[in-house]
Amino acid sequence: MKIVITGGAGFIGLNLARAIIRRGTLTGPSGQQEEVDNILLFDQAVPDCLPDGLDERVTMRAGDISDRDTVFGLVDRDDISVFHLASVVSGGGEKDFDLAMRVNLDGGRHVFEAARARRGLPRVLFASSVAVFGGDAMPHVVGDSTKQTPQTTYGMTKSIGELMINDYTRKGFFDGRTVRLPTIFVRPGKPNAAASSFASGVIREPLNGEECILPVKTDVQMALLGYRNAVAGFVGLHEADGEAIGDDRAVSLPGNTYSVAEMIEGVKRVAAVNNIESGPITVRPDPAIEVIVAGWATHWEASRAKALGLPNDENMDRVIQDYIDDFMPAR
Amino acid sequence: MKIVITGGAGFIGLNLARAIIRRGTLTGPSGQQEEVDNILLFDQAVPDCLPDGLDERVTMRAGDISDRDTVFGLVDRDDISVFHLASVVSGGGEKDFDLAMRVNLDGGRHVFEAARARRGLPRVLFASSVAVFGGDAMPHVVGDSTKQTPQTTYGMTKSIGELMINDYTRKGFFDGRTVRLPTIFVRPGKPNAAASSFASGVIREPLNGEECILPVKTDVQMALLGYRNAVAGFVGLHEADGEAIGDDRAVSLPGNTYSVAEMIEGVKRVAAVNNIESGPITVRPDPAIEVIVAGWATHWEASRAKALGLPNDENMDRVIQDYIDDFMPAR
Repeated sequence: MKIVITGGAGFIGLNLARAIIRRGTLTGPSGQQEEVDNILLFDQAVPDCLPDGLDERVTMRAGDISDRDTVFGLVDRDDISVFHLASVVSGGGEKDFDLAMRVNLDGGRHVFEAARARRGLPRVLFASSVAVFGGDAMPHVVGDSTKQTPQTTYGMTKSIGELMINDYTRKGFFDGRTVRLPTIFVRPGKPNAAASSFASGVIREPLNGEECILPVKTDVQMALLGYRNAVAGFVGLHEADGEAIGDDRAVSLPGNTYSVAEMIEGVKRVAAVNNIESGPITVRPDPAIEVIVAGWATHWEASRAKALGLPNDENMDRVIQDYIDDFMPAR
Repeated sequence: MKIVITGGAGFIGLNLARAIIRRGTLTGPSGQQEEVDNILLFDQAVPDCLPDGLDERVTMRAGDISDRDTVFGLVDRDDISVFHLASVVSGGGEKDFDLAMRVNLDGGRHVFEAARARRGLPRVLFASSVAVFGGDAMPHVVGDSTKQTPQTTYGMTKSIGELMINDYTRKGFFDGRTVRLPTIFVRPGKPNAAASSFASGVIREPLNGEECILPVKTDVQMALLGYRNAVAGFVGLHEADGEAIGDDRAVSLPGNTYSVAEMIEGVKRVAAVNNIESGPITVRPDPAIEVIVAGWATHWEASRAKALGLPNDENMDRVIQDYIDDFMPAR
């Protein structure tokens, strides 16, 4: 079978591809485990060379997800699953509303329509976000039964995607499942336009001996999930029994709540264990980031994910050690 | 100022126009009461002659709301408010998914973009529905804080509209407000494609001496609101203080729960008071209607609407008497 990953050149997309390569099979539209013979990574830009951990089964293609024909050209087999991760992120969406609507809403519809056009009932996994929650009436703990009143355009388009995944599935157009993510860390590489980018930077930059400029105060709390378990959540929800998911196809992945201060303690602790001299952390609040982050949920409930067997992190130190093991090979 | 009512040739649209004609003024983008000098009723088809209760201030235009230029041509002044009622209804949306997406989702976006393109901050009132609620996890009582997991394409597009109204308002593109309606009765005229059409038919047809074929059993319960108070809710939410509404701009209008049996008792009682010999009611369940109605909420909470001063019906008999007074003038 073929696997399409939109946003496939991003951090989660690439690591999802690596996880599927390692597995070798996924449940196809037949309902049986099928060999994965092609993984197509689609993104607005793709690397010149195949990243580590991938092989000849993987192809990469750059293009514009808001172009319908481009998207239909990706979903070109009936034995297929689609992981739709491509998205303008939170900070980017606040800067350019129209771009967020074109990429997230129109692009998402193209993906869903392309999957609908196939025979069989392809599985479509959609990445949603903690950013669907927010606003005056947000409860202290958010989860699968919380009303979604997002306070970013990004979150609004993610809520819309959840609704569409449910309705396309109800209509029998495809077998849709939404993975609702807390903030994922520790992302390697450079900061991105997501307002949550500091949640990785506050660990990554010190471990790399660089200064981290922290745009929020250290008492800020966030619901976090390590990237290994985020990827495991995508694969696990893809493989889950559809009946067990029920008619609301969106499932909050597990996550734990940490303060930024706890993250800073964690990175110092794990750096010491690994004999790494960590770089400095400077608090320099950015009001534009603070206002977005202040609107996000901090406490996270994920009982449906747990019932479906989707894994949670052991603790903060484990996630930091995973980053060192996976992304600092020179050590 | 100008008022645009999409779906303006429909029952609620026409009666909203009549109510605005009687008032004469609404709050304009200036924040002051302004004289209404034009009410544009836009619909897919409009009557040849101006309906009763309207005057020279009212113009009618037929067109396709999924055509962007058509919609931008309606919203052609800065001193304007838009009531966006046009929609493919529940039964129609289940028959034609693509039509519902084109009219409800694309059409809605055109309306919102057209309002955004004006100077000032026009008020945009959007009609949502009880159909946003449903599914496995729906609580017994639904309201403003209930997670929306609609079980019709109609309901899905209404949930999306609520999300967009909130985000366009948050971004300062316009001053949006969503009126979330329970089932509105008693509608005059012929049955329509809404699965809830029988809620008016079971009163209207007997009063007109005709047989009512009831597509559901008499123990079915529904949350209902008389059309006079539905119209009052649109006007009241248009006039409400924006601060008092808060960041979730959607407000469930008041409503009461009745069984179909109680509706049948009511029509017999009020018919007798008015010396009307009522027509027969025949129960003939239609599985396609039953499955849609079974998914709807029956018990309705509207404390935010009450706090904003939006009115509820006195009782069932009052709403039936209103129908006789307003739509059976020969009596």
